[in-house]
Amino acid sequence: MEHDAKHKPWLLIPGPVSICDAVHRAMLEDHSAGEPEMIAALRAARGYLAELANAVGWGTAIPFPGSATYANEAVIRTFVPQGGRLLVHTNGAYGDWLVAMCRRMEMPHEVLRTAPARPPSHDEFCRALTVNSDITHVMMVHVETSSGLINPIEMVAELCRSHRKALLVDAVASFGALPIDMRKLNIEALVLSSNKCVEGPPGLAWVICDRAALDRSAGNASSLSFDLWDQHETVDRTGCFRFTPPTHAIRGAYAALQVHQEEGGSAARLRRYRTNWLRLVGDMRRLGFESLLADAHAAPIVATFHEPHDEHYDFRKMYDGMAANGFIIVPGRLAVPDTFRIGCIGALPEQAMSLAVRTIRDVLNDMGVRRFGPLERRQAETAEQLM
Amino acid sequence: MEHDAKHKPWLLIPGPVSICDAVHRAMLEDHSAGEPEMIAALRAARGYLAELANAVGWGTAIPFPGSATYANEAVIRTFVPQGGRLLVHTNGAYGDWLVAMCRRMEMPHEVLRTAPARPPSHDEFCRALTVNSDITHVMMVHVETSSGLINPIEMVAELCRSHRKALLVDAVASFGALPIDMRKLNIEALVLSSNKCVEGPPGLAWVICDRAALDRSAGNASSLSFDLWDQHETVDRTGCFRFTPPTHAIRGAYAALQVHQEEGGSAARLRRYRTNWLRLVGDMRRLGFESLLADAHAAPIVATFHEPHDEHYDFRKMYDGMAANGFIIVPGRLAVPDTFRIGCIGALPEQAMSLAVRTIRDVLNDMGVRRFGPLERRQAETAEQLM
Repeated sequence: MEHDAKHKPWLLIPGPVSICDAVHRAMLEDHSAGEPEMIAALRAARGYLAELANAVGWGTAIPFPGSATYANEAVIRTFVPQGGRLLVHTNGAYGDWLVAMCRRMEMPHEVLRTAPARPPSHDEFCRALTVNSDITHVMMVHVETSSGLINPIEMVAELCRSHRKALLVDAVASFGALPIDMRKLNIEALVLSSNKCVEGPPGLAWVICDRAALDRSAGNASSLSFDLWDQHETVDRTGCFRFTPPTHAIRGAYAALQVHQEEGGSAARLRRYRTNWLRLVGDMRRLGFESLLADAHAAPIVATFHEPHDEHYDFRKMYDGMAANGFIIVPGRLAVPDTFRIGCIGALPEQAMSLAVRTIRDVLNDMGVRRFGPLERRQAETAEQLM
Repeated sequence: MEHDAKHKPWLLIPGPVSICDAVHRAMLEDHSAGEPEMIAALRAARGYLAELANAVGWGTAIPFPGSATYANEAVIRTFVPQGGRLLVHTNGAYGDWLVAMCRRMEMPHEVLRTAPARPPSHDEFCRALTVNSDITHVMMVHVETSSGLINPIEMVAELCRSHRKALLVDAVASFGALPIDMRKLNIEALVLSSNKCVEGPPGLAWVICDRAALDRSAGNASSLSFDLWDQHETVDRTGCFRFTPPTHAIRGAYAALQVHQEEGGSAARLRRYRTNWLRLVGDMRRLGFESLLADAHAAPIVATFHEPHDEHYDFRKMYDGMAANGFIIVPGRLAVPDTFRIGCIGALPEQAMSLAVRTIRDVLNDMGVRRFGPLERRQAETAEQLM
């Protein structure tokens, strides 16, 4: 199988992802944000995103330029009012960013840190909410990109409902594939990326939120740039952004959402990713690799594997060997040492996953690696460390 | 003359600008930020920007995703320390954004507001600095995009030197064309866009700053996202961003900077823009239009014209007529009513300006407009209002 030259290399990473030709083509044109065609595209994109989140008529989708991390900061600054207090859950690098953000902006907050390789339990969340009764908002990451772990937003939403807390969700790695019913879960605000499972170019994030909560948030944000109320007011009234918008990223996002819809929406995309993930994990296991997470908790977004326990193994060499064959992978980004990750999302066919695994085998063989799995003893230690 | 279909419409606006084929092509490839090729491109782009600003060996260029307005907020948050106080100069919409930003972040500041259609005087700045002796930093817009006015950063830099104030400059509309010698002017930090005179895609801003001042700024920013010290530390050490970067915008910016260098740098670009501007203003004046600014103070970036004083004139109709012919223009954004703007920057040939003016003439004729200039009386009133 040959790569399409334009897609070379294939990005087997959890973002930026490989995007399809239709999205690339949309980025070939230069437009002003004020052109009727651009205003219509933005309106359609906002409407479709609200549909995906089951937020039509109740919520609103706000485009927000820059990294989705910015949008997370904007959500905290906009939705947690003066006198509010945030409970931040973390079990990985992306949860840790939320904590770091709160510290830097001096947002009153508590941290609920749970083990990195399993979902937080009902008890853990319940205890945190009971102990910190002055908490007004809870924020968590849906799929923790640093491991691929799915965090149980449904369970937390139920707890937030009974404890009367507002729920904020970083759905950057999950939105567009995993089902999220904002209205049913009563999620006050949710952050997603045009990249990741939406498969558009990076550089434009979105916030979908409860319209009533947004209306109450006027004047909360102690930052002009990060004021989602203000951004929404301008976008809703004029169809344009407050500041020069990333027009190519907007066109790319709109094209990507059209492709998403034509493919059959989030359910179809999840099926495709699951097919990729099953192929990847199955083939890797046949080689002797072991994955970090129990399958029940693993999102088909990115898979984390233990590194081979072999003196000849060297991640940098594996990266270079894969890159020379047109595949980009990423190291682990977790408290758990000696792991690496392979992404399953983006415009990648199932065959790309098989080819990637065969390439890993060949690259490791060339390196002199004979044993692909971790040592039994190491596994036991890691398992202990993870609990 | 025909438009290249890919460039249709031509953007006669001060951003986003029309970009060239080489830049579009660079955006057709998907890459991970960690690939050696991407790291090398980012390093080269940073080096070239520092060269353009005469900041090599003294300063450093920091890529900053999102709108350049974000980067302005990041500069204020990063460079003005606890206990600092900012003097913000404004004479237009972009200066007003800086003021609004300071208000929202509760940054101690004073506002120096001067008339919109002439540069601020030495006396005005001198008085502001003398009256507010506790000022530590001055921030100003170099070219005020809402009018096209060039603000005298050289004069203010001299005052800042003698009053021992640090100078921060929003050079979004000028960098890449107008000469700016950061080292000679002792500008502590300067914001630019990959778009505008650099002619790359929008969505990636840059801050060039005095390295020593940056080193002193660690921990200043009360925002993780807007901490330039932190962004610089990661970019300098790893060649990557802290958060998922806008990879296509980075590739586009790098390609645009290569084109900029091949064209002959900022001086060559300024010559091209000046040719465009002279053609535009000359042709418009021959039709009877009058420009808002005295030529000596007008940047060849965007020209502001008084609207025709004719009962048949309607900006919306003129916009639509121009758009139907493949030209996008923008309304005025100024305290001065009844103006409109035409941009001269981007990948536009001189002939595009002539064609644009002929199209304006035809569109206005079709509309029944006979008189293209403003009334004498109105002019006199406006002149008074502007002083």
